[in-house]
Amino acid sequence: MRLSSISLSLLFCSLLSAAPADLIVSAGRVVTMDAQRTVIINGAVAMAKGRILAVGPKAEIDQKYQAAKRIDRPDAILAPGLINTHTHAPMSLLRGIADDLTLQKWLEKFIFPAEAKNVNEQFVRVGTRLAVLEMMLGGTTTYVDMYYFEGAIAEETKKAGMRAVLGQTIIGFPAPDYKTPELALAGTEKFIQRFQNDPLIMPTAAPHAIYTNSPETLKAARALADKYKTLFVIHVSETQKENSDCGRDHNNMTPTAYLESLGALSGRTLFAHAVWTRANDILTIKRHNVGIAHCPSSNMKLGSGTANVMGLLRTGIPVGLGTDGPAGSNNDFDMFEEMDLASKLAKVSAQDPTVLPATQAFAMATIGGAQALGLEKEIGSLEAGKKADLITVSTSAPNGWPMHDVYSMLVYSLKASDVQDVVIEGKATVENRKALTLNPLEIRREVKVLRDKVDASLK
Amino acid sequence: MRLSSISLSLLFCSLLSAAPADLIVSAGRVVTMDAQRTVIINGAVAMAKGRILAVGPKAEIDQKYQAAKRIDRPDAILAPGLINTHTHAPMSLLRGIADDLTLQKWLEKFIFPAEAKNVNEQFVRVGTRLAVLEMMLGGTTTYVDMYYFEGAIAEETKKAGMRAVLGQTIIGFPAPDYKTPELALAGTEKFIQRFQNDPLIMPTAAPHAIYTNSPETLKAARALADKYKTLFVIHVSETQKENSDCGRDHNNMTPTAYLESLGALSGRTLFAHAVWTRANDILTIKRHNVGIAHCPSSNMKLGSGTANVMGLLRTGIPVGLGTDGPAGSNNDFDMFEEMDLASKLAKVSAQDPTVLPATQAFAMATIGGAQALGLEKEIGSLEAGKKADLITVSTSAPNGWPMHDVYSMLVYSLKASDVQDVVIEGKATVENRKALTLNPLEIRREVKVLRDKVDASLK
Repeated sequence: MRLSSISLSLLFCSLLSAAPADLIVSAGRVVTMDAQRTVIINGAVAMAKGRILAVGPKAEIDQKYQAAKRIDRPDAILAPGLINTHTHAPMSLLRGIADDLTLQKWLEKFIFPAEAKNVNEQFVRVGTRLAVLEMMLGGTTTYVDMYYFEGAIAEETKKAGMRAVLGQTIIGFPAPDYKTPELALAGTEKFIQRFQNDPLIMPTAAPHAIYTNSPETLKAARALADKYKTLFVIHVSETQKENSDCGRDHNNMTPTAYLESLGALSGRTLFAHAVWTRANDILTIKRHNVGIAHCPSSNMKLGSGTANVMGLLRTGIPVGLGTDGPAGSNNDFDMFEEMDLASKLAKVSAQDPTVLPATQAFAMATIGGAQALGLEKEIGSLEAGKKADLITVSTSAPNGWPMHDVYSMLVYSLKASDVQDVVIEGKATVENRKALTLNPLEIRREVKVLRDKVDASLK
Repeated sequence: MRLSSISLSLLFCSLLSAAPADLIVSAGRVVTMDAQRTVIINGAVAMAKGRILAVGPKAEIDQKYQAAKRIDRPDAILAPGLINTHTHAPMSLLRGIADDLTLQKWLEKFIFPAEAKNVNEQFVRVGTRLAVLEMMLGGTTTYVDMYYFEGAIAEETKKAGMRAVLGQTIIGFPAPDYKTPELALAGTEKFIQRFQNDPLIMPTAAPHAIYTNSPETLKAARALADKYKTLFVIHVSETQKENSDCGRDHNNMTPTAYLESLGALSGRTLFAHAVWTRANDILTIKRHNVGIAHCPSSNMKLGSGTANVMGLLRTGIPVGLGTDGPAGSNNDFDMFEEMDLASKLAKVSAQDPTVLPATQAFAMATIGGAQALGLEKEIGSLEAGKKADLITVSTSAPNGWPMHDVYSMLVYSLKASDVQDVVIEGKATVENRKALTLNPLEIRREVKVLRDKVDASLK
C-alpha cells in the first residue's frame, strides 16, 4: 500500500515534469544511422514541431516526454526514412508502356510520343499522387525529382506531407511545359522563388543532361542554382554513348570534365547515374564534392552498365540510391530493392561478396543519400535536432524471421511491403500500412482514366 | 415475365447440365503460359481431383461447370504457380547469421559450425515449415530442395499441401543425418521408395557437388536415380574455383565434362547454378537435355559470377529460376525478385535492354522451370489435364497501377506481397493472403526458440 502510493506519486511527478512531445514512436529495435551506427533495443523517438527531440531507450523517452500521440511497434524496426535520390515521379502513369527495348526505340517510339500527347498539368498531378502514394507506402520520406510542371508536383507532394527535392527540367527542345530553355530557366527561377522557404519542398534547377542542353543553358542553370543556393541536378554519364558523343563534340572531354570546364560544378551538385566515370572523373567529383544518385535497377534494366560504386565510395564521395523513373527503367519506386541490388550488383561485378555490405547499403539509402543532397544536417539519421522523418518496418511476416542481424534483414530480407508506419516532418503519413494523407481509391480511379487515354494515344 | 422465365429455365438447364468441379478460380486476366502464351481477359480455371478441367473465358467456364467452391478476383492476375528450382529450405533458420563474407569464411566460420551444432530432424521440420510458409505466401507452388533429413522435409511439405522435388543430400563427409556417403546412398534409396508414388513429393538423389563426392559416389547416385527414374540434382560450376580445381584434379576437364565422363548425365539431370559453363559445356548440357536452375540473387550476392543464361536459352536448354538457400546467399524465397533479377542481370551483362524480356523471365519461373525438371506435362502452365497449381496476384496496390502490359507488371512491378491466393493440387493453401495449411503464429514461436539456440551456438 505504502509502496504503491510512492510509485503512484513518482509516476505523478514524472508526468508533471515530462516535457510535451507531439509524437512518440517506439519499436523493438531502433536503427539510428548516427555516426556510431547506434542500434537501440526497445528504443523510441520523441518529436515535436517537425523535429526530433530525443532518441533513446523507450523507458527513458517515456519518462522524459509526454506525447499527444504514440505509435508503439515492439515487433518492428524503427529507422530513418529512406531517401530516393533520383526519379521522375509522374512517369508512374507510363509504367509498363514500353519495356525491353533499345534506348532509341523506347524514347522515340514510346516515351516521347506518349509524353507529347499526354503530359499536362493534370497528368503530372495524378502521376505525382500515384508515385508519392507508392513511395510512402514503401518507406521513402524524401525524393528527388526531375520532370515537367514541377510547381504542380510540388503542390501535390506538399499536400501529401512528403519531403522532396524537386528539379524543374530545363531541356533544349520543346517540352510539355516550356517550349524553349529560356522559358524553362525563367520558369525555374519563379518556381525556386515560390518554394525556397518551404519546410518540405526544396526547389532546384535540373538541366536534363549535357547532350540535351547548350553550354549557355548549362551555365545559366548553374548561375540560377548558385543565386538561390539550391542544388544543381543533372543526368551524367548514364550511357557509354553519352561519353563517346561528349568526347567527339567537346575536345575529348568526359561529361564530368566538360561540366567542370563550363564552371557548372561551382556549387552543390547531384549527378544522376554516373555509370561511366573514369578515374579522373572520380577525382573531379571528389574535388567539387558532387553527390551521386546511384540507380542499380535502372542501370541494369536499360543495360546502361555497372557504375564504379566502390570506387566512388572509397574516394569518400557521397553516394545515395535512386529508383529512376518507373516507365521502362525500373518499374517501381521500391527503395528496398535498390538497397538489395546496390549490394548484389557491386558484389557480382567485383566477384567479391565482401564489398558493399548490408550496413553500407542501408547507409546509402539514408544518411548517404542525405549527404549526396547536402542535407545531412537535416535528414538521413535519427538524432536530436534533425527533421523527424522515420519509418517502422514490421518483422511479423515470415521473411522477417528469425532476426539475427538487423541490417541484413533490412537490406536482404525485408521488403517495401513490410513498412508499417511513415512519419515525415513529425507527422504520420502512413499508419499501419494505411495512407493518411492520400486517398488510394480516388487516385486509382484517376489513374484508370489516364491509362485509357495513354493507351489510345499509342495506337 | 416471359423472357425472365425463359432465362430462368435456361439457367436451370445450364445448372443441370453443368459438370461438377471442386473449385473455380476467376480473375481479370488469366496468363496461361500455354504454347501460344494465351492471355484471357476475364477468365477462369475449373478444377477437380487436383487437375485442371478447363481454362477459358469466365462466362464459358461458369456455364460449363458448377463448383463446390469459388475464388473470384476481378482485380487480379491468375497465373501458373511459380517453380523455385533450387533452394535449401531449412536454412531459413540460419537467415542473417552470416552475410557479406568470403565463401571460405562463410562456410567454415558460420554455416558448417552452425549446422553441426543445430541441424537435426526437429530443426529441419521447423525450418521447412517457415520456408514453405514464406514460399507459398510468395506464390511458389513447387520447390526443389537439397538438404539433410529430406524425409522430414517431405512430411512437412506434404502436410502443408505444397509440391516439391526433394533431393536427399549425398556428401563425402559426415553430415547431420548420415555419417558416410554409403549411408546417405542407402538412406536416399529408402526415401525414394517411400515417396515415389506420392502426388505431391518427388524424391530424388542429390549428390552435393563434384568436389564433395568421390567419382564412385557420383556414379552410385546416378545409378540410384536411373533405377527409380528420378531426377539427379547437383550443384555444378557455381564458382570459378570449382572449375579450376576440377581442371587440376581431372585432366583439364570442366565439371560438366567430368560428370559426362563418369556417365553421370545418363538420365534426367538438374544443374544448380551453372555459372561457369563454357561453349563446350553448353553443347554437352544440350546433348543430355540437362535442366538448369539459374539463381541470379545468389550468384550476385556470393559474387560467384554471371551465368551465360542467354547462351543456354538460345541453345534451347530448359532454364528455371531458383532462390538458393536464404542463409547468406539471397536471403529469402522470393521468386518475384528472381524473375526481375534474371532479366536485369542478363540485360546489364549484355549491355542490351532487349535481352531476356518480361515474357521470357515469367516463362523461366513457370513453364521453363517445369521443363528443367522434366515436369512440363504436369505443371508450369494452365492447361486442361495438368495439375491444378495456380496463383492469383492482386493488382490493387499502387505498384500495380496502371495496367498496360501484364508480363511487365508480373516481372518488373508486382511483388511477392501482391500474391493473394495459392492453389496446389486443386486445393487452396493460401486464400486472400492467409495461409490455410500452416499456422504462422505457432511457426514463429518455434522459430524464436531455435533462433536463440543458433545464436548461442555461434558464440
